[in-house]
Amino acid sequence: MKSSTPLLDKITYFIVKQKGKHVRPMFVFLTANLCGGITERTYRAAGLIEMIHTATLVHDDVVDDANLRRGFFSINALWKNKIAVLVGDYLLSKSLQLSADNDDLDFLKILSATTKEMSEGELLQIEKARRLDIDEAVYFEIIRQKTATLIASCCACGAASAGANSELVLKMKLLGEKIGIAFQIKDDLFDYEAQSSILGKPVGIDIKEKKMTLPLIHVLSKAPRSEKKWIINIMKNHNEDSKKVKELIQYVKDKGGIEYATQKMMLYKKSAIDILHTFPDTDSRASFIDLIIFTTERTK
Amino acid sequence: MKSSTPLLDKITYFIVKQKGKHVRPMFVFLTANLCGGITERTYRAAGLIEMIHTATLVHDDVVDDANLRRGFFSINALWKNKIAVLVGDYLLSKSLQLSADNDDLDFLKILSATTKEMSEGELLQIEKARRLDIDEAVYFEIIRQKTATLIASCCACGAASAGANSELVLKMKLLGEKIGIAFQIKDDLFDYEAQSSILGKPVGIDIKEKKMTLPLIHVLSKAPRSEKKWIINIMKNHNEDSKKVKELIQYVKDKGGIEYATQKMMLYKKSAIDILHTFPDTDSRASFIDLIIFTTERTK
Repeated sequence: MKSSTPLLDKITYFIVKQKGKHVRPMFVFLTANLCGGITERTYRAAGLIEMIHTATLVHDDVVDDANLRRGFFSINALWKNKIAVLVGDYLLSKSLQLSADNDDLDFLKILSATTKEMSEGELLQIEKARRLDIDEAVYFEIIRQKTATLIASCCACGAASAGANSELVLKMKLLGEKIGIAFQIKDDLFDYEAQSSILGKPVGIDIKEKKMTLPLIHVLSKAPRSEKKWIINIMKNHNEDSKKVKELIQYVKDKGGIEYATQKMMLYKKSAIDILHTFPDTDSRASFIDLIIFTTERTK
Repeated sequence: MKSSTPLLDKITYFIVKQKGKHVRPMFVFLTANLCGGITERTYRAAGLIEMIHTATLVHDDVVDDANLRRGFFSINALWKNKIAVLVGDYLLSKSLQLSADNDDLDFLKILSATTKEMSEGELLQIEKARRLDIDEAVYFEIIRQKTATLIASCCACGAASAGANSELVLKMKLLGEKIGIAFQIKDDLFDYEAQSSILGKPVGIDIKEKKMTLPLIHVLSKAPRSEKKWIINIMKNHNEDSKKVKELIQYVKDKGGIEYATQKMMLYKKSAIDILHTFPDTDSRASFIDLIIFTTERTK
């Protein structure tokens, strides 16, 4: 990660020191293991996907105006938006250069499509959030694009790095997509369930940003007319009022929104595990299943 | 450019309608013409470089907080920073996907390195601007990274698309680098010379943003101690004061800063044309020289 710009070195050092859960690299390694064995290219895939993920986090912080990330200040809070944009661009291009220089054309095909879809997903979410017209189908399309495609890419690149044929790569991609959707539903549930101190970022921000996620979408679709109006009113006009936000969170809990979203998440988790059960019962399959269980039961 | 997100379609339609000078695609075509002839890949290279250029403009607007671009409102002024970040990301990944899907590994190698260098150059500029410690050597390193590498890539991709061997690709890359440096010096001169109404963007913004460019760097290096202090004081403390900015612009003019920068630009222009003179005297060579003359004599 060494560059010729001292400021950049300072920031990348800061990022590397922070460390996330490294869930995505783990999926790369687990898939490779399952599909023929880890190779040198597996390490590269894992590294460059984590770089792309970090680039999108850095850019997300500009997008969301978030001031906390992984329990600490975000890049944009410390170094301003303009620097966050450039650091994100640097990380993204550096990762693509890494694959281009190593002739990883298969990774490049997968990952350029993925980064494109991720930005489309975020834009779709912003557009829909403005009009508050997200139904369940749109919600699933958004989370597929903005989250599930990258985890699908982890599994596709992991399989490709192990020398899997195109059919197996596709199967692993599908597996990753299911995991990714479960993962994002879990993330959206945190905004209703978790405590800020454990999560390392504020709670209730989705409502504040007029983002409608599954628990709320479900409850809204079932609500009688007057309660619908009350919900929309809070989302539109009182989304910055902490008391109102808390009331809405409680309402979503009372009306079964969390239960419903949890159920949906469990369905995706199950169909991911079903795919894994088509593989022989090995240690690597068991570890893979463990990680899926972790992603749906994690507390942060 | 059609996507599945209506908001994105609206913005890309807006961008396409704006149109720039299209200098970069022209360099791609001219180089291909000179190196064996335009192919299908030349069109693709031209398109994707213009997309990358547009992506960096959209991100630059976030970086600079600029409200005018190509004589009209910038994306971030109309749609906010967060959307500008995502649209830039979309354009960048879409262009890389275009080359990956067409197996243009040579373009990918050139362009991923270029986008990386461009963000490094911008970051270097921000870092140096803060401390006001840019000398001529640092200035040339910054403009090489942030501007010249992309024009160098135009010429390298143009040559590659025409089937040039690696030696010729490298020669064209060097040519593009010289053109790019001349081009950026010209751009920096506009901030001292041009009228806002012709240029389509505000004048004097470099000083306001504490960016030190060649005319000022030269004058500062020659100034006696007391005048140095006066310059640094304006850059540090009065860079938002229009009267002080005007005084500094006049000082730079009086002390030969513009002459010096113009001379340097002419040297780069000449060495670019010298490279072209090693090619046979054809129409395509003449057009290429014409475009270089245009880039150094343009009024906007």
